[in-house]
Amino acid sequence: MQSVPNRLERQIEFLIEIDKIKHIFRKTKLLDQSRFENDAEHAWHLALMALILAEYSNEPSIDVAKVVKMTLIHDIVEIDAGDIIVYDTEMRTLAQEKESTAAERIFGILPEDQKEEFIRLWREFEARESPEAKFAAALDRFEPILQNHLTEYYAWKVHGISFRQLQEKNQHIRDGSTTIWNVVQEIFLAAKESGNIV
Amino acid sequence: MQSVPNRLERQIEFLIEIDKIKHIFRKTKLLDQSRFENDAEHAWHLALMALILAEYSNEPSIDVAKVVKMTLIHDIVEIDAGDIIVYDTEMRTLAQEKESTAAERIFGILPEDQKEEFIRLWREFEARESPEAKFAAALDRFEPILQNHLTEYYAWKVHGISFRQLQEKNQHIRDGSTTIWNVVQEIFLAAKESGNIV
Repeated sequence: MQSVPNRLERQIEFLIEIDKIKHIFRKTKLLDQSRFENDAEHAWHLALMALILAEYSNEPSIDVAKVVKMTLIHDIVEIDAGDIIVYDTEMRTLAQEKESTAAERIFGILPEDQKEEFIRLWREFEARESPEAKFAAALDRFEPILQNHLTEYYAWKVHGISFRQLQEKNQHIRDGSTTIWNVVQEIFLAAKESGNIV
Repeated sequence: MQSVPNRLERQIEFLIEIDKIKHIFRKTKLLDQSRFENDAEHAWHLALMALILAEYSNEPSIDVAKVVKMTLIHDIVEIDAGDIIVYDTEMRTLAQEKESTAAERIFGILPEDQKEEFIRLWREFEARESPEAKFAAALDRFEPILQNHLTEYYAWKVHGISFRQLQEKNQHIRDGSTTIWNVVQEIFLAAKESGNIV
């Protein structure tokens, strides 16, 4: 595309690059259990959750559009860094540097102003300090919990996740939404009572 | 989940129902040509396009968050109505009633206020009258055009789409963004000159 200005060319190049996220598979299955979910589908689902569940954010004056943006871009770094289950603490720590490098490379395809905006937003999500980041992070945990609940605890069983791990690694849901945390508690208890997790 | 209030229960039921969109396949392939794209991936990609290309909307004061919302929900009706290629005019017309019924059923799972909001937004997208709907519709056409451009014109060749059909069925891109329309013109011309479409 010869006559396309450089700025637009870079933006299109970025949009082409991120197609790769459709090949990054997660540890959880689609609800019909036919296959694993990929990162594009996951991000889409979180964005819908943000739109529909925003009223349950602990912070009532949350910027929903910002939460949606965060959910849409939060896993783009996994194109280079891959998907690591949250219960693997050691691997998650090792992945952090890889993810920072990935953010620089991938968002770096964009024009400078957009690169900065997206990296800032991604870092804000990762830091889980702003109300929007806390809520987005709660959704990011709620989706796979709901998937496990509806797929006979597939990923938890395969990876041998315990009730204690579930509590520990998901407790930050409470910082984003106590309502969602209450739902999650019911799911965890049902999983334990059914004997599917210990 | 016994103690979950009815409103939240309906919201979660909706979020479970829309998982099915991950099984609705489109006519275009992922950029590595390994398989067809599904509606969840497509919606995610459009939302990213909205965030990154908003500056090229013909209407400078566009509400980007609204465009993002539109792109995220625009194909949910296809859970019931299926995906029909835009070049099949007859089937597209027949699909309209099916899609309206689908919108009532699927968005109807939500609490009344959210049902109304989402149906209104979906109808606005379909009507292509507001600046946001015009821009969202332009992106909805631009994504498969870019995919065809980068996958050796896969869908256009398989479905025997002509240069004239491409011009006719995509001309509303111009109503949303003349800049994107110019890019698209280059892609169409290259396809014709390469002898891949007639």
